Amino acid sequence: MLKIGIIGVTGYTGMELVRILQSHPEVEITYASSLIDIGKRIGDALPHLEKGSDLVISAFDATDALNKAEIFFVCLPHGKSMEIVSLLKKGGSKVIDLSADFRLNDVSVYERWYGKHTQPDLVREAVYGMPELYRERIRSATLVANPGCYPTSVILGLAPLLAGGLINTQDIVIDSKSGISGAGRDPAPGFHFPELFGNFLAYSVAGRHRHISEMEQEIGKMAGTEINVTFSPHLLPVNRGILSSIYATPVKVLGDADLHSLYSEYYQGEPFVRLSAPDAPLPSLKDIRGTNGVFIGPRSDKRNGKITIISCLDNLVKGASGQAVQNMNIMMGFPEKEGLEQRALHP
Amino acid sequence: MLKIGIIGVTGYTGMELVRILQSHPEVEITYASSLIDIGKRIGDALPHLEKGSDLVISAFDATDALNKAEIFFVCLPHGKSMEIVSLLKKGGSKVIDLSADFRLNDVSVYERWYGKHTQPDLVREAVYGMPELYRERIRSATLVANPGCYPTSVILGLAPLLAGGLINTQDIVIDSKSGISGAGRDPAPGFHFPELFGNFLAYSVAGRHRHISEMEQEIGKMAGTEINVTFSPHLLPVNRGILSSIYATPVKVLGDADLHSLYSEYYQGEPFVRLSAPDAPLPSLKDIRGTNGVFIGPRSDKRNGKITIISCLDNLVKGASGQAVQNMNIMMGFPEKEGLEQRALHP
Amino acid sequence: MLKIGIIGVTGYTGMELVRILQSHPEVEITYASSLIDIGKRIGDALPHLEKGSDLVISAFDATDALNKAEIFFVCLPHGKSMEIVSLLKKGGSKVIDLSADFRLNDVSVYERWYGKHTQPDLVREAVYGMPELYRERIRSATLVANPGCYPTSVILGLAPLLAGGLINTQDIVIDSKSGISGAGRDPAPGFHFPELFGNFLAYSVAGRHRHISEMEQEIGKMAGTEINVTFSPHLLPVNRGILSSIYATPVKVLGDADLHSLYSEYYQGEPFVRLSAPDAPLPSLKDIRGTNGVFIGPRSDKRNGKITIISCLDNLVKGASGQAVQNMNIMMGFPEKEGLEQRALHP
Amino acid sequence: MLKIGIIGVTGYTGMELVRILQSHPEVEITYASSLIDIGKRIGDALPHLEKGSDLVISAFDATDALNKAEIFFVCLPHGKSMEIVSLLKKGGSKVIDLSADFRLNDVSVYERWYGKHTQPDLVREAVYGMPELYRERIRSATLVANPGCYPTSVILGLAPLLAGGLINTQDIVIDSKSGISGAGRDPAPGFHFPELFGNFLAYSVAGRHRHISEMEQEIGKMAGTEINVTFSPHLLPVNRGILSSIYATPVKVLGDADLHSLYSEYYQGEPFVRLSAPDAPLPSLKDIRGTNGVFIGPRSDKRNGKITIISCLDNLVKGASGQAVQNMNIMMGFPEKEGLEQRALHP
Repeated sequence: MLKIGIIGVTGYTGMELVRILQSHPEVEITYASSLIDIGKRIGDALPHLEKGSDLVISAFDATDALNKAEIFFVCLPHGKSMEIVSLLKKGGSKVIDLSADFRLNDVSVYERWYGKHTQPDLVREAVYGMPELYRERIRSATLVANPGCYPTSVILGLAPLLAGGLINTQDIVIDSKSGISGAGRDPAPGFHFPELFGNFLAYSVAGRHRHISEMEQEIGKMAGTEINVTFSPHLLPVNRGILSSIYATPVKVLGDADLHSLYSEYYQGEPFVRLSAPDAPLPSLKDIRGTNGVFIGPRSDKRNGKITIISCLDNLVKGASGQAVQNMNIMMGFPEKEGLEQRALHP
Repeated sequence: MLKIGIIGVTGYTGMELVRILQSHPEVEITYASSLIDIGKRIGDALPHLEKGSDLVISAFDATDALNKAEIFFVCLPHGKSMEIVSLLKKGGSKVIDLSADFRLNDVSVYERWYGKHTQPDLVREAVYGMPELYRERIRSATLVANPGCYPTSVILGLAPLLAGGLINTQDIVIDSKSGISGAGRDPAPGFHFPELFGNFLAYSVAGRHRHISEMEQEIGKMAGTEINVTFSPHLLPVNRGILSSIYATPVKVLGDADLHSLYSEYYQGEPFVRLSAPDAPLPSLKDIRGTNGVFIGPRSDKRNGKITIISCLDNLVKGASGQAVQNMNIMMGFPEKEGLEQRALHP
Repeated sequence: MLKIGIIGVTGYTGMELVRILQSHPEVEITYASSLIDIGKRIGDALPHLEKGSDLVISAFDATDALNKAEIFFVCLPHGKSMEIVSLLKKGGSKVIDLSADFRLNDVSVYERWYGKHTQPDLVREAVYGMPELYRERIRSATLVANPGCYPTSVILGLAPLLAGGLINTQDIVIDSKSGISGAGRDPAPGFHFPELFGNFLAYSVAGRHRHISEMEQEIGKMAGTEINVTFSPHLLPVNRGILSSIYATPVKVLGDADLHSLYSEYYQGEPFVRLSAPDAPLPSLKDIRGTNGVFIGPRSDKRNGKITIISCLDNLVKGASGQAVQNMNIMMGFPEKEGLEQRALHP
Repeated sequence: MLKIGIIGVTGYTGMELVRILQSHPEVEITYASSLIDIGKRIGDALPHLEKGSDLVISAFDATDALNKAEIFFVCLPHGKSMEIVSLLKKGGSKVIDLSADFRLNDVSVYERWYGKHTQPDLVREAVYGMPELYRERIRSATLVANPGCYPTSVILGLAPLLAGGLINTQDIVIDSKSGISGAGRDPAPGFHFPELFGNFLAYSVAGRHRHISEMEQEIGKMAGTEINVTFSPHLLPVNRGILSSIYATPVKVLGDADLHSLYSEYYQGEPFVRLSAPDAPLPSLKDIRGTNGVFIGPRSDKRNGKITIISCLDNLVKGASGQAVQNMNIMMGFPEKEGLEQRALHP
């Protein structure tokens, strides 16, 4: 059994890792740290995970952690993650980091959007953990930067078009809506239940959201050119799920059937990418709630030629902890779907 | 007291008219018809409107209706409305029609999107009931076609830019999200509570939603050219509210301050248009829930120059029954805000 | 125009007072204080109340407050309220206090449930602000203790039975469910959106909730004997509304018709009490959302004789700010319904 | 692999069976019928179950069904189930019936609450499928009547007290709240999204709900006496979960620690019963969402001695399809927890 450590177990991505890994036959969680609930059993701190969760939560200590586990998932906010990742790596462990700290290849871009980076050497070593793009590099990686939730929905939604050079790269519009668990578990006025119930809002529109840097890095590489997207995130008053509606102008006419062929071919054999055929219902959050799937439906507008791509996923699974486990499976040579075969919970 | 008739009182726009008109000092509801709950007091059929609602619901009968009321709000589905509007008009009444039947100036466009039109003469007579655009014509109208909910949010969101010739008319993208009351009160599998709770989905994307015809008619007139928008409606799992995120490319650089000046000037004196200043929070549904306001926040992206406009309103008030009462106030010479000064209900 | 001061304007009961009082023709809000948003216009701090809210929020200062307003609504947590009420009363103002500080007639009972009381003299002077029970005393009161939300639903639900000596006083069971706005506007882990969305829970069951003392005081007076109720509050994942299901054993057989007669007679002429007749639908939250109504449906179980009373109200209106305005209307000789005639917002 | 047939696969309990059984290593779904979506793959009719769901939905035909599967889950409404169960039994199959048709031992009681029963002989053969009470009888049963959702929460909540003769049997009050999936998948005005969103209501109170007959049968047997409960069901605006708050009067003083000992001993070794210790948080829906657990927290009121029991479960799992699979596991000699080890989905 592979010994797993989770740093930041009481946050939403940490607790989701516990949920997923408890069903994984090849691993055992042997270390879990947090800033809160120290000394409690996981099952007492997180009552929904009661079954079989007798591991006690520790305050983080690198030596202790390295003694107890072989591979680590670091579930900390950006800026807080880089130092701890460095300690764990120095101790010889493999690390999957769920923060933004190692996602951007260019430290100066990181510093423009996020602030000071203290581990530029590790940045060079890190592999961007999107298996659909970098499966081979992940296999041999010792530090995986697990992608952001919005970028996963966007990059996978656009990849077949960009890789084929089929759209204008200068007028991509991305309108994303995210469930509130994406904001993390710390209470704040903007996430207080009565402020969001029955509400809906956009935030950080017009080039102000940090995930833009990550999207543009990856889709820019695909396109072979610098891209400046228009990105509007919105807060959706539900718990889980991101649905991105992506708009692009094709360089030649592409009908629904063309799009379906293109996407089907591009994603052939991908275990977690699912496509909505031209006459099938569009993807919706309920179809992927609790699963590691990303569900994509590209459609063509016969009137003006524009392409609309609906791309949705569970922000805590394919958008975070599920993709992290997928990366671990690849890194450790486990079957890629191990632990990730949950069915969607609906209704 | 002006005598009011409501045709289709048990639907959501009908019941919302009752809610609004009960607080209007110049009018009295003297006739209400429906296909259901015939013979019941309004207050028994619609328990949330219990106060002072002793009027009994009738099966529609034109003679009876014309005897009992002076002006009519017709709250029927498209296709069902045109014949009844014709009867009421022939009887000499003024009519505000909340369906799509008289919104499109060109009968052939109507028939392409909706089906057969039996009253083309009345189409020519009808005035599109958006006071911000057609206040003077509404004043003397005898048939007002009350605008659709999505189009109201979109047209008012784009008007200042289009009227000024300030954006490229060929790449407008509109991503709208609507609360479920917009789908009406008839139960259907897609609107069954457990199917929508915690869910979110796009529908009729890529040029398939009927409201496109109405938007394009009005924004095309403003721009002086034919426009083909990209429009994606989404179902938002809340009861009330539409938030449209609109994307446009300016023909010259427009910063946030420029946009705020432009919109402030264009909407100066408008009683129900509200703007979000550059550093203020963006409009959200809670700000206008239950009110006749439309709340608009235009923002400029410094990175790529694109404009994002957030436009939101309550689909049952400014998107339907409230705008209908505003039209009535204008037609009858009442103060335009009469009956429409409710504050938003939050939380 | 009566000059109104609101202490604690940015909390949910404070903002709800603004919403209600802005439609009240006899009053003007001339003073508003808070611990946050000091120096901002009300309309900027609370965007949903934008219309006509130019008053600037102050830090509380008794002299300033007394100079600017004639009557005060104090919307502070228990324990924080008593000193400020004392200052305002000493300055000669009338006060309506929305906290628990002056609700309990017996200071020792207050101190058992809430903690130290520093103003026992004022306790003796305070009138419990439930107009259905104490209208005459409220008329001449200078300090009104506005009732709690749970107690309002419970006391009014039980009053006709207790006043008539018709039930066993020793086995009353009260199962109440409250929307989350009842918990106030301060964020906390238990009220973080993702923790409550789709969730439901009981709390402080089995004699541990403070509102028990208030209920028992009032229903004990009615019954003429000490009563120990069984009370279970629950958190309902909606914004507004309390629904209490109350269970009692009658001392003689009472059918649905008997109960309806009893309640109708007891509440005859009460402007805000509404009854559900035996064959009508039971009261639900949507029927009273945003209104000052309390909607009560008593039912008899033919199998075992037990009585079930469903009592519901909007916790921010009849359960707090609306009842406070009702009290002000009585104290000032205004029509009792002034400012309180809003219709329920549904859907 | 055991061949499974599901009759009524497109309803909520049918689709939940698919979700659960797809993870069960000993079985294969080889037959599925419905009145709708005939000829479609399960994965197309129910997009959230897309993975590996290539079985095509049939119109029910007994011969076909009996040829294709060895054991059947019948997921039909009461009254529709009995004939089909009879056909399948005559064909030699084991059947687990999720309707109410075989839950009541006394046909005359069934007919009083539900209507005509055409299969009284099968009633005598059926075993009430609550493993915690009847595990041994289920082991050899060929027809299992799977319990109702409300009764499961209530019977398991009361069993330790009733079995011990520790409470007064004549004043039990049960206040239950259920998510909307309990109402099934057919749309109806009362379950239309906008009618329930943000709403809450009681229904069928005061002795009118059919599940009373089932509760009283089982708790009456435990107590050795006829019991008439007071039962109030409520509609909770969430998808999944039942929380029952149960009130009882002990015949001798029982503190929290006594209750915890009593329940712990009674449920020792039960794989799906979970208890909330005296100082732990009370059970909430999020703790058991998507799992087969029933989570029970008994509490004593020091002031009046009354006992309050909070009992919650997922109405589609332990309240329906999960308990059905638990019964199948017992009937077939599989490990009782097989296929039922999902963790709760939270947030």
